[in-house]
Amino acid sequence: MGDFAPPFRYNGTPYLPDIVQTPPMTPATLKLEHTGEFIMHRGGRLPGLQLAFETWGELDSSASNAVLLFTGLSPGAHAASSELDPKPGWWEPVIGPGKAVDTRRFFVVCINSLGSCKGSTGPASINAATGRPWRLDFPELSIEDIAAAAQLVLDALGISRLKALIGPSMGGMTALAYLHRFPDRVDHLLSISSAPAAEPFSIAIRSLQREAIVTDPNFNHGQYDDEHWPWNGMRLARKLGMISYRSAGEWRERFGRDHQQRYEPTAFGMNFQIESYLEAAAEKFIGQFDPTCYIYLSRAMDWFDLCHGCPGFYQAMSGVKLKTACVIGVDSDILFPLHQQREIAEGLERLGACPQFHALPSTQGHDAFLVDYDRFTPVIADYFLSID
Amino acid sequence: MGDFAPPFRYNGTPYLPDIVQTPPMTPATLKLEHTGEFIMHRGGRLPGLQLAFETWGELDSSASNAVLLFTGLSPGAHAASSELDPKPGWWEPVIGPGKAVDTRRFFVVCINSLGSCKGSTGPASINAATGRPWRLDFPELSIEDIAAAAQLVLDALGISRLKALIGPSMGGMTALAYLHRFPDRVDHLLSISSAPAAEPFSIAIRSLQREAIVTDPNFNHGQYDDEHWPWNGMRLARKLGMISYRSAGEWRERFGRDHQQRYEPTAFGMNFQIESYLEAAAEKFIGQFDPTCYIYLSRAMDWFDLCHGCPGFYQAMSGVKLKTACVIGVDSDILFPLHQQREIAEGLERLGACPQFHALPSTQGHDAFLVDYDRFTPVIADYFLSID
Repeated sequence: MGDFAPPFRYNGTPYLPDIVQTPPMTPATLKLEHTGEFIMHRGGRLPGLQLAFETWGELDSSASNAVLLFTGLSPGAHAASSELDPKPGWWEPVIGPGKAVDTRRFFVVCINSLGSCKGSTGPASINAATGRPWRLDFPELSIEDIAAAAQLVLDALGISRLKALIGPSMGGMTALAYLHRFPDRVDHLLSISSAPAAEPFSIAIRSLQREAIVTDPNFNHGQYDDEHWPWNGMRLARKLGMISYRSAGEWRERFGRDHQQRYEPTAFGMNFQIESYLEAAAEKFIGQFDPTCYIYLSRAMDWFDLCHGCPGFYQAMSGVKLKTACVIGVDSDILFPLHQQREIAEGLERLGACPQFHALPSTQGHDAFLVDYDRFTPVIADYFLSID
Repeated sequence: MGDFAPPFRYNGTPYLPDIVQTPPMTPATLKLEHTGEFIMHRGGRLPGLQLAFETWGELDSSASNAVLLFTGLSPGAHAASSELDPKPGWWEPVIGPGKAVDTRRFFVVCINSLGSCKGSTGPASINAATGRPWRLDFPELSIEDIAAAAQLVLDALGISRLKALIGPSMGGMTALAYLHRFPDRVDHLLSISSAPAAEPFSIAIRSLQREAIVTDPNFNHGQYDDEHWPWNGMRLARKLGMISYRSAGEWRERFGRDHQQRYEPTAFGMNFQIESYLEAAAEKFIGQFDPTCYIYLSRAMDWFDLCHGCPGFYQAMSGVKLKTACVIGVDSDILFPLHQQREIAEGLERLGACPQFHALPSTQGHDAFLVDYDRFTPVIADYFLSID
């Protein structure tokens, strides 16, 4: 494509794609092997499944201090460092000894979502029946399946009741699905930038991301390999993701109209810092996440509707017995907007969960919980100090 | 691509792509042929150019009632119907006898932008030196060139001074560029959902649209033809455009989570009405606009910075002698956000143009000026009634 198309060339160092499909197993990674059939929410069946997870802290003798953390679309189970894996986790500033979620006090569990590609069973896993990756033969995945699969881990750990459930972004949807399925097993809920149902603007973004991936000729009905990887579809999808994860205000302050020097400019792009920022974010991601897992998880979010068939949140969640809840949203979030956080808080209020509601004035949009720790950590710390 | 990729199949009627590359000339279309060399803002040269335009109303004997309308990225010169072309124009409710811009009073001129593909010279035009379309050999295009070319039409019409200049969206950028170049030729300015410079969020959207187009294998360095047209890149670009043109609130009210029936559902899309809405919008556009013209105009918007090299709007526009101005923005516009309209209004205030400023509470985002006529038309009508 000459000088106007990706892959964009670095000024200096050559561009080296870095495919990491191997699950990033470390000594900290625990594995649950479930050999029984797993029946999916939409009717599909898995002959068995594996879930990768990590834990921090010690489960107390009555198994009453467990905190389950569901993740957003792309993170794995490595939420925080530990002696077994000192690499910083994706929520390093929040989880650990003396941190907001204090692992001296709580036994924290983070599970790589069913359907993902970071150690848990998903479309990138080998289908034992064929000896090849499942890819598009993987059964339809729902947020409800991620929640149900997590229960297998808790059962294996002997945890019948959660002290707290934490769900940011897609993980917040999963937390709501978990509460719907297991209404009396959670004491406290921390919901962050989540949604009781996907709204059309978010569906539009995600649908377009999936379209970019499946129409990449290299996607080839899911028959891609390392040599023919849907780089371009994944690159476009990730850049669109970044556009939805951050905010115009942040970028105005941070980049303005400054020019970039990291890549060689192309005829129709790579002039501005915002463009090199998006490219760098895409490069970091596109080889690290399986395209089929991506479109399965993305579609699961679009399908999610807690209130499906119910008049509303309250009715869908009737029976949920939370002692308290904390709902955090960000005013610049365009993907999981603030009014959806209010909807969750109001529903929880009607359920008697006395939720705290925090509308944080961060410019960092949906991603704020991963970057704006100055605003998030104190709120999370206060909430966890407040729970008995 | 089987059942999970475009082209999406209608339920019932088959999908029939409809390429219309021929400029939509009608008896209403006027043509200016400029045979001299045209030197572009960024240094390129055109050996000559043609501009398609339409007019409504009568130029008075002193040529003092002319109104020039610059367009957004995609419209042609056919802004309104006339006896010569009764087909409704793209701003039909605004322009005409007795309408907000009253053609019994004003002589209205609308020009298809230089660089576009609706009758004016652009990358889709034939390069006389080769006998083939210019495509990527077309010189670099700037908003400033569109403004300068328009002056050729005014000169030909014998209009040395404009009663009013109207610019919505990209046309608003062009209007500012025109004022910068010809500071004392305009009495009144109507600026709608415009920007004195592209901001990084909008650059991100447009850069990604261009990337989707140039990475479509059918784009092929600009060597596409009707059989190998970059449908997919244009489809992705147009859908992303729609995401940036409307608003989440409008879609929440209008579509919610309703399912669609217009197309056969695919494995990873076409479940929801929002998806069929985007597809229908894309289908309407992708064969009607030349991909190379699209990326040239899109890039010109990113490059536009009225204040480039100046401390600010006021300094860049010093010398501009407007009698009045009216600046309209929409609170749900994410592409040309309200704070940029304020910036324009404040700059005009300092210039002594006593601008009116209207922040319209429309849910229809950047596109509101094309669809929310209930809000727009009265404001425009009042403004034009107020000018002498």
